[in-house]
Amino acid sequence: MGGFWFTEKQTENFGITMRINKTLHTEQTEFQKLDMVKTEEWGNMLLLDDMVMTSQKDEFVYHEMVAHVPLFTHPNPETVLVVGGGDGGVIREVLKHPSVKKAVLAEIDGKVIEYSKKYLPEIAGELENERVEVQVGDGFMHIAKSENEYDVIMVDSTEPVGPAVNLFTKGFYAGISKALKEDGIFVAQSDNPWFKSDLIRQVQSDVKEIFPITRLYLANIPTYPSGLWAFTVGSKKHDPLEVSEDRFHDIETKYYTKELHKASFVLPKFVKDLTE
Amino acid sequence: MGGFWFTEKQTENFGITMRINKTLHTEQTEFQKLDMVKTEEWGNMLLLDDMVMTSQKDEFVYHEMVAHVPLFTHPNPETVLVVGGGDGGVIREVLKHPSVKKAVLAEIDGKVIEYSKKYLPEIAGELENERVEVQVGDGFMHIAKSENEYDVIMVDSTEPVGPAVNLFTKGFYAGISKALKEDGIFVAQSDNPWFKSDLIRQVQSDVKEIFPITRLYLANIPTYPSGLWAFTVGSKKHDPLEVSEDRFHDIETKYYTKELHKASFVLPKFVKDLTE
Repeated sequence: MGGFWFTEKQTENFGITMRINKTLHTEQTEFQKLDMVKTEEWGNMLLLDDMVMTSQKDEFVYHEMVAHVPLFTHPNPETVLVVGGGDGGVIREVLKHPSVKKAVLAEIDGKVIEYSKKYLPEIAGELENERVEVQVGDGFMHIAKSENEYDVIMVDSTEPVGPAVNLFTKGFYAGISKALKEDGIFVAQSDNPWFKSDLIRQVQSDVKEIFPITRLYLANIPTYPSGLWAFTVGSKKHDPLEVSEDRFHDIETKYYTKELHKASFVLPKFVKDLTE
Repeated sequence: MGGFWFTEKQTENFGITMRINKTLHTEQTEFQKLDMVKTEEWGNMLLLDDMVMTSQKDEFVYHEMVAHVPLFTHPNPETVLVVGGGDGGVIREVLKHPSVKKAVLAEIDGKVIEYSKKYLPEIAGELENERVEVQVGDGFMHIAKSENEYDVIMVDSTEPVGPAVNLFTKGFYAGISKALKEDGIFVAQSDNPWFKSDLIRQVQSDVKEIFPITRLYLANIPTYPSGLWAFTVGSKKHDPLEVSEDRFHDIETKYYTKELHKASFVLPKFVKDLTE
């Protein structure tokens, strides 16, 4: 077999490595290094600053778990904001909820959208949906100027380096609170508990100061560091642990189920300790 | 920093890679290639045939989840057999249950025991406990000659290559059933659902033919392929999903909790499909 091997150093001393058959596109955008590659194991894959963002084979885990946990928690989500998420995967899942009338995507890097549409069409395809409004711009600024506008906000960012650094600050969570309606809920990807325990602890602590209900849940993403990914929930009123049975309706998924919704909040002891 | 990088190819086209500071021991034993290495990220680590078996930093997940799920399911486990598991980690967890009077370890490769004691003392230390009987020999044969002897059997094997190949056969599960008492329960590591879905499906199907209660549960092990590890349970009488609350007692753990005991059986949709 041909191709070459790409290694993502997930820490200074550990990483994943994979065979790449072909580089489909590479460029330094205004914000980050963008690579779209064809891998043998995971299908087409988007890398930003040499970090795996999403792949055709395992993308469903992240996108389903970001979208469906808050959307089934809220009793009637109509307006939704996705910060980041230019690959379109979260938007695709959001649109599975018929209550959603408008889903706004605020992605800072238009190139992510452009090349996801080209090389990850089954992920990005729904960005053209009429219920979706795509805004290429700074999600932090979008949040800062929004007030009492959204039922659900999802923060689908990169790690807190480069353009995403503002998205891990207390000021940002305060802005999210203001941008949400009075019973709004948000979720943010929060990296992993093996290598980034301090980050998870800090985010939990910051969000707790602003939102009366703060939770952490987990999902297994094999191409992300440690394979175990954390998501922080901040909610003004609705508790993701207390979703009524009749709130769930059938949607087509490969990872999320209504039983897993609740089980994903049951944390291993060493992770639970980070939330206390 | 010095050292070199070791890569485990977990599939033909994907793997993990890590910095190794020092090789502590390497030899071709009678059964397999054994390497004990000092890694920068995970502490001392045991490799067999170039596959990660256990490391000081993440070993607790596997060992706790193999031991405590069946031991809290059984109402009064007194005699326990561990097949494989020469590093001693499962035995250490088994001994946290005061009901256990005798724990037998049947490990085919004495060198695994010898070098685990030397380089992984906090894992292997309890192999010297007076409640433990260490037998260096073929676990398959040990099972074949046992009858109505054990309350709980744990199969802590390598992947189904090399010495472990017999441990993934229907004949072996039939032998386990015979070796168990009338309300006995067993658990076997069953690799991962991303790369080995056919194996999980086959083991579930085989065990179902022999045990009235067959279950699958999951845990996150960052140094194992995909980070998501599966365990198959076969039980004659006691259902791990129906453990009574007063069965749980306090033990010191870093991963297992009584809440996680049940949540670990709640499977992502694509994994649940493998069990049906």
